Amino acid sequence: MAQFDVSEVVQALHQVRDEWRESQQRVKDPAARELPSIDAVQHIVEQLKGALFPMRLGPTDLRHENEDYYVGYTLNAALQALVQQATLELNFNARLHGQRDGAQLRSQAEAAVQTLVRELPTIRRLLDSDVLAAYRGDPAALGVDEILLSYPGILAMIHHRIAHVLYRQGLRLLARMISELAHSQTGIDIHPGAQIGSGFFIDHGTGVVIGETAEIGHNVRIYQAVTLGARRFARDEAGNLLKGQPRHPVVEDDVVIYAGATILGRVTLGKGAQIGGNVWVTESIPPGASVSQASLQRDKP
Amino acid sequence: MAQFDVSEVVQALHQVRDEWRESQQRVKDPAARELPSIDAVQHIVEQLKGALFPMRLGPTDLRHENEDYYVGYTLNAALQALVQQATLELNFNARLHGQRDGAQLRSQAEAAVQTLVRELPTIRRLLDSDVLAAYRGDPAALGVDEILLSYPGILAMIHHRIAHVLYRQGLRLLARMISELAHSQTGIDIHPGAQIGSGFFIDHGTGVVIGETAEIGHNVRIYQAVTLGARRFARDEAGNLLKGQPRHPVVEDDVVIYAGATILGRVTLGKGAQIGGNVWVTESIPPGASVSQASLQRDKP
Amino acid sequence: MAQFDVSEVVQALHQVRDEWRESQQRVKDPAARELPSIDAVQHIVEQLKGALFPMRLGPTDLRHENEDYYVGYTLNAALQALVQQATLELNFNARLHGQRDGAQLRSQAEAAVQTLVRELPTIRRLLDSDVLAAYRGDPAALGVDEILLSYPGILAMIHHRIAHVLYRQGLRLLARMISELAHSQTGIDIHPGAQIGSGFFIDHGTGVVIGETAEIGHNVRIYQAVTLGARRFARDEAGNLLKGQPRHPVVEDDVVIYAGATILGRVTLGKGAQIGGNVWVTESIPPGASVSQASLQRDKP
Amino acid sequence: MAQFDVSEVVQALHQVRDEWRESQQRVKDPAARELPSIDAVQHIVEQLKGALFPMRLGPTDLRHENEDYYVGYTLNAALQALVQQATLELNFNARLHGQRDGAQLRSQAEAAVQTLVRELPTIRRLLDSDVLAAYRGDPAALGVDEILLSYPGILAMIHHRIAHVLYRQGLRLLARMISELAHSQTGIDIHPGAQIGSGFFIDHGTGVVIGETAEIGHNVRIYQAVTLGARRFARDEAGNLLKGQPRHPVVEDDVVIYAGATILGRVTLGKGAQIGGNVWVTESIPPGASVSQASLQRDKP
Amino acid sequence: MAQFDVSEVVQALHQVRDEWRESQQRVKDPAARELPSIDAVQHIVEQLKGALFPMRLGPTDLRHENEDYYVGYTLNAALQALVQQATLELNFNARLHGQRDGAQLRSQAEAAVQTLVRELPTIRRLLDSDVLAAYRGDPAALGVDEILLSYPGILAMIHHRIAHVLYRQGLRLLARMISELAHSQTGIDIHPGAQIGSGFFIDHGTGVVIGETAEIGHNVRIYQAVTLGARRFARDEAGNLLKGQPRHPVVEDDVVIYAGATILGRVTLGKGAQIGGNVWVTESIPPGASVSQASLQRDKP
Amino acid sequence: MAQFDVSEVVQALHQVRDEWRESQQRVKDPAARELPSIDAVQHIVEQLKGALFPMRLGPTDLRHENEDYYVGYTLNAALQALVQQATLELNFNARLHGQRDGAQLRSQAEAAVQTLVRELPTIRRLLDSDVLAAYRGDPAALGVDEILLSYPGILAMIHHRIAHVLYRQGLRLLARMISELAHSQTGIDIHPGAQIGSGFFIDHGTGVVIGETAEIGHNVRIYQAVTLGARRFARDEAGNLLKGQPRHPVVEDDVVIYAGATILGRVTLGKGAQIGGNVWVTESIPPGASVSQASLQRDKP
Repeated sequence: MAQFDVSEVVQALHQVRDEWRESQQRVKDPAARELPSIDAVQHIVEQLKGALFPMRLGPTDLRHENEDYYVGYTLNAALQALVQQATLELNFNARLHGQRDGAQLRSQAEAAVQTLVRELPTIRRLLDSDVLAAYRGDPAALGVDEILLSYPGILAMIHHRIAHVLYRQGLRLLARMISELAHSQTGIDIHPGAQIGSGFFIDHGTGVVIGETAEIGHNVRIYQAVTLGARRFARDEAGNLLKGQPRHPVVEDDVVIYAGATILGRVTLGKGAQIGGNVWVTESIPPGASVSQASLQRDKP
Repeated sequence: MAQFDVSEVVQALHQVRDEWRESQQRVKDPAARELPSIDAVQHIVEQLKGALFPMRLGPTDLRHENEDYYVGYTLNAALQALVQQATLELNFNARLHGQRDGAQLRSQAEAAVQTLVRELPTIRRLLDSDVLAAYRGDPAALGVDEILLSYPGILAMIHHRIAHVLYRQGLRLLARMISELAHSQTGIDIHPGAQIGSGFFIDHGTGVVIGETAEIGHNVRIYQAVTLGARRFARDEAGNLLKGQPRHPVVEDDVVIYAGATILGRVTLGKGAQIGGNVWVTESIPPGASVSQASLQRDKP
Repeated sequence: MAQFDVSEVVQALHQVRDEWRESQQRVKDPAARELPSIDAVQHIVEQLKGALFPMRLGPTDLRHENEDYYVGYTLNAALQALVQQATLELNFNARLHGQRDGAQLRSQAEAAVQTLVRELPTIRRLLDSDVLAAYRGDPAALGVDEILLSYPGILAMIHHRIAHVLYRQGLRLLARMISELAHSQTGIDIHPGAQIGSGFFIDHGTGVVIGETAEIGHNVRIYQAVTLGARRFARDEAGNLLKGQPRHPVVEDDVVIYAGATILGRVTLGKGAQIGGNVWVTESIPPGASVSQASLQRDKP
Repeated sequence: MAQFDVSEVVQALHQVRDEWRESQQRVKDPAARELPSIDAVQHIVEQLKGALFPMRLGPTDLRHENEDYYVGYTLNAALQALVQQATLELNFNARLHGQRDGAQLRSQAEAAVQTLVRELPTIRRLLDSDVLAAYRGDPAALGVDEILLSYPGILAMIHHRIAHVLYRQGLRLLARMISELAHSQTGIDIHPGAQIGSGFFIDHGTGVVIGETAEIGHNVRIYQAVTLGARRFARDEAGNLLKGQPRHPVVEDDVVIYAGATILGRVTLGKGAQIGGNVWVTESIPPGASVSQASLQRDKP
Repeated sequence: MAQFDVSEVVQALHQVRDEWRESQQRVKDPAARELPSIDAVQHIVEQLKGALFPMRLGPTDLRHENEDYYVGYTLNAALQALVQQATLELNFNARLHGQRDGAQLRSQAEAAVQTLVRELPTIRRLLDSDVLAAYRGDPAALGVDEILLSYPGILAMIHHRIAHVLYRQGLRLLARMISELAHSQTGIDIHPGAQIGSGFFIDHGTGVVIGETAEIGHNVRIYQAVTLGARRFARDEAGNLLKGQPRHPVVEDDVVIYAGATILGRVTLGKGAQIGGNVWVTESIPPGASVSQASLQRDKP
Repeated sequence: MAQFDVSEVVQALHQVRDEWRESQQRVKDPAARELPSIDAVQHIVEQLKGALFPMRLGPTDLRHENEDYYVGYTLNAALQALVQQATLELNFNARLHGQRDGAQLRSQAEAAVQTLVRELPTIRRLLDSDVLAAYRGDPAALGVDEILLSYPGILAMIHHRIAHVLYRQGLRLLARMISELAHSQTGIDIHPGAQIGSGFFIDHGTGVVIGETAEIGHNVRIYQAVTLGARRFARDEAGNLLKGQPRHPVVEDDVVIYAGATILGRVTLGKGAQIGGNVWVTESIPPGASVSQASLQRDKP
């Protein structure tokens, strides 16, 4: 084996970390690393997926007469774990602001998770509408079960509909981590802040980006590489970005957006509009309108 | 720990599942969840990859004089498991149509897998041609081994060439699951129904979409974010999608399609045609032709 | 269970492998498969990530006063393993050229890894600048910790900055494997040869492609689906690709490139230039210039 | 790596297997290895242990209000798996006798498992009595929870009380495998055929052996290295062992047997008898009697 | 799959648990199962073993120059985890007595673990003396490394010397769990309360039992199946066992006890005494004495 | 989390290790920990068990027509790994004696493993005879398959017959590690040096100890807690143990030794002798003799 004296680089890395912490004005917190863990979040999402769709995404040895036992057991385990992760996030934020009220933050975490619990039936209903939309929108789909088992768009929406509830409860880091897990698996990047109606179908999906303040109606269909993005960022007088401003599109019911289209800024795509592939849209489109790309130029062969 | 009374949400979720099953006209089948498992399918594909390329994708302690032992052992295990998954898919389909003939379906599953076995040497030959095409087509490629170990396009083609055989044998869900595994890892979405000739090279690959009825000749090269898609979907008189109609492009031998190009509908790209980046093609292109995007508009600085 | 007589296909696959090896003029090397292993490389990268960011990407039970112990231990383990993988790559290359000098190659591997060790503090500093750039460039970012935990662009840059050092040390296969691991997780495909300055921010990221000879200055920001690619490949008189020629763009400091833009060939984007979404650029852009797509054509509703 | 040509030894081992199968008059069954799997059995026992003692041997995140969900889910999974293993055993036995009635054997397996289900509450009650006996019998025991978590005697009895039910249902191989799992962990070897009353306490336990036809009353206490064995084996006229004859001791209520005592043959230890350490007993002992070892001989120092 | 309606047995098991809890006068604590976990304890012991003997029981890729990094990192992780488990035990005990002072119990747990930390160098020194004693006492021992890697007696002593410190700190359940882990692996059952001097060697070991109040001097050697047990248990007037009374033997320096010997009660084996195999001792033996079994009786052949 | 400053104890442990190494006259070897790994050895033994009994101890999905593929593949992997572990042991020994000849030691390791390969068919034949002996010797045995799956005595003999070949090849540490793995699982402690004939049956087994120089003939049967040990150890003039002297019993063909019997020293148990339970034998027993314990003394009830 090779001999490496790592003591020098250990020392140098220590110094870089100190510089960073100083530049970020972080006190060396005596407490441990109290941030949510990606592995824990992934496990929780897997459990919630099983609880939402026990016979499709739960354990393979599950039987109908046994569903409720499984759902009850899994939910409880997932929720305990989620309260723990949520408390970690809230504590971390509080510490950044010099606060420290463990018990109160714990209650806040529990309340947020309770909200998620109450919304689970609604989430399942919305996801059922998404599955149906996929079945109706894709001539290659053989049945609803295939969609649940193998369509990346559905995977992304399961993650999103859970993440969005957490986002609304102020658990923004957890919400983001859940979204990124789906992004990594599917190439579909939906910010957990985006509001999305029922019957949403993303086909193929790789490269789709949907921004934080986007609002999407019912029965909207989009294809791969569609961007619903921001055009320019508002800044305050000091030149810092203003965070949280509405800056992404509003997409009304029944809109279809084909592959590669880019819609930027707080514009509105009116009800039933059809946006062609690869087009670049930076202004509002009236209801029922169709938009397509400028025709191409053919070189001589 | 937090206290959650989950009995209410368990009940509510039970009701949503009942509504869904009713709406889908599903009898509560007393049988267990009889669908293929993603984990099982992934394991089978890993085994087949090892059997196809034992010294590159098999176990690290394998030696040349030992290859056949490994290939024989691994193939047999993979095929047993594949028959089991195939039987699950066939049984599921049969039950949806009110049939139940376990033994006959089992034979059908075995016959399908036998077909795959017979085609494995051909699959390996085709994949060898794909590796060579990558080596010849990418100036950054150092050697054929690097391609097999680290090119996402090759990974996608290994999955596709296996999935396509299963698709042709009527195992459409298994085929789709194999494709999606590659899609998730590579961002390359090839429908298992697509027909692809030898020497196919996809460079970079993220965002590539190839539709179910696409037909691709020999020695075709495509880049990231290329779509070979459908333009519009045929519907029957009731307005339902007609499934299985030829609706994706035909790409003849030696065609090159650069990044971001979108080819839609049952058009033909003639032998040797070159399709420029980002272009939008909805009509056939004659052999040897070159197509490129309209020139851009420069704003004043 | 089904009965498969695999001996025939084992034989047929054996023959295909022999044909391939013959066509590639490979002697059946009595030595085992002596190539780096993807799993080993992934493990090494995980360890290096922990050593670079112990409190964020290291083990969850780590505490501040314990950081150096962890960093020292982890680095040493990672470096031992990396020397082993590097030796495998160098040996493999040497054998292809008929050489065999284990001890000398081992020293070469150790020297390459020593170089990486020395550069780790610099890498950490560069990554800190990337994190800050993300925080400053994304209105949705809540804090620097969220960025490290959930932004795919940062993950891609951690991999790239490690891979680039190995690439410069001649460990091109290892470098490529590290890049592809990030590509698979993020959809961002940065060739390890690309030179990238400090404060680099890739937002969303899916579909980004950055070629081997690209040169990127400081404080550059790019969005999803941006390509910095080659236009055409130089060939020698025999028609073979010339490998290693500068063929990708030079991007100067402070450039911004919006989603879907494609920049091809050895062109220069001048300091502070802004490249609009979806545009297609094949010639140099002067400093400070803005480029955007031709306006779209609206069909009648 | 070393080069081994294993083809010769593979051939030689093949021949030894053929000889063995011929000597055992086994046809080379075309069916696969259809015997229960140790790993599967171990997993089933772990599940049953959790279902019997959910808050002590179940998952650590379980809460009181959630117990029934966990018990129901776990039981169902364990029972499905047990039916599968039981069917494997019954099929194997049937094949040895030239029979083949899959469906009927499956029903038999299900009936056996149903019997176990019905007896689970009784098993739990018996185990509770065993825990109490340990608490009352060991001055070092701090509480009943410590006993369940760390006393090998209780672990052995959990396995035995499950195994005994299966033994009585004719699943002798499964029963034996469950017993051996406990034997391996605890050094306590109880044949699943042994009949054991309530309130049984084995202290320390290593080396305890209890034979197939032993009968043990209520509130019996034994210490390490106690043997309840057979004295001699009955043989038929051909000299073959007669299997299944009563040949082990009967131990009546309230008996105490100290460490290392050996009781052999179909003798009876009467109610309340006390058997001293290391003694060797081959005849019946009347109720209330005390038996101890001959005094020792002291050498001169 | 079989159909089992488990709801009846779930209900019946629920009732048995209620009866047990009532009989044990346990309120249904709203808190979760707050007891130490066997898996957690096992992991902690593995870490402590690595920290005590880094080059023999630590990770295989460890190097001398790296030892302190590993020891520091591992210790810290082990101690954090141990504080957590210790707090669980203390909380559980407090709740049984109706107390609830989380913060104070946490401090108590930390103090106990601090004591273990301070004693680790002493523990290592004692274990070194045990290794040397094994080397000197076993003609089959080839070297000290073999002893550390493969002698069950040493494994048992590593566990014991850790467990004993915890026992003295009042963490009796954790101590017992650590002892039982060794008992299960080695068949050597040392109660964590036993006091054992330096240079202790247990050869073979299976069946050895050493009781809670045993006191063993320096350089004592014992063989398999030796019992240092209690003779009779003191009871109070109500007939309950008196817990914690001295009731096991005192073994002075340099004593040797051969296989199968049983020493019972609070007797003293004087300095240098030799106890023969299989003997039964219930009275004190003077220093330097030899004790052996009564001669055997030979039957006629 | 608790705060522990471990730097002091890290330093103290460092010092204890230095003292130990000095006392053992060990130079701080710059090389890494070059000793065999228990995990690696366990994996190798599992593979060899599968190769010896493919349909019983190999993978559950194995089929008859596939056996040779599995055996060949598994053997090769096991042998490669074994050569590596053997080289580690030989190197370690050589370094202790100040030698360093890697290549020559590697050849020695390969030769030792080649010997094991050649003996595998003989080992399988001997194990078949052991299985038959168990079937003939235990009235509770239902069939030969049960014995292979659940008898600890057979597990111990599989380990021993492999370990003994390695012991004879000078790989004493590897041999010992293999033996201890069986000891830990079964409580049966057979030194790998012991010579054991065919048809050997150990019933129950816990507590059996068989010493290094024991010689056991054919068709010997022994029960739990039997010791074949040394009586006293020869020492040289300096008082050091003489290692390797014959000091354990010789047991001739057809001997039976019942539970708990202790045979000590280089005595001979003549052909067909029967040794009763719990007896203590320190002199030779003539062929055909029966030996039993002195009768017990009964106290008054």
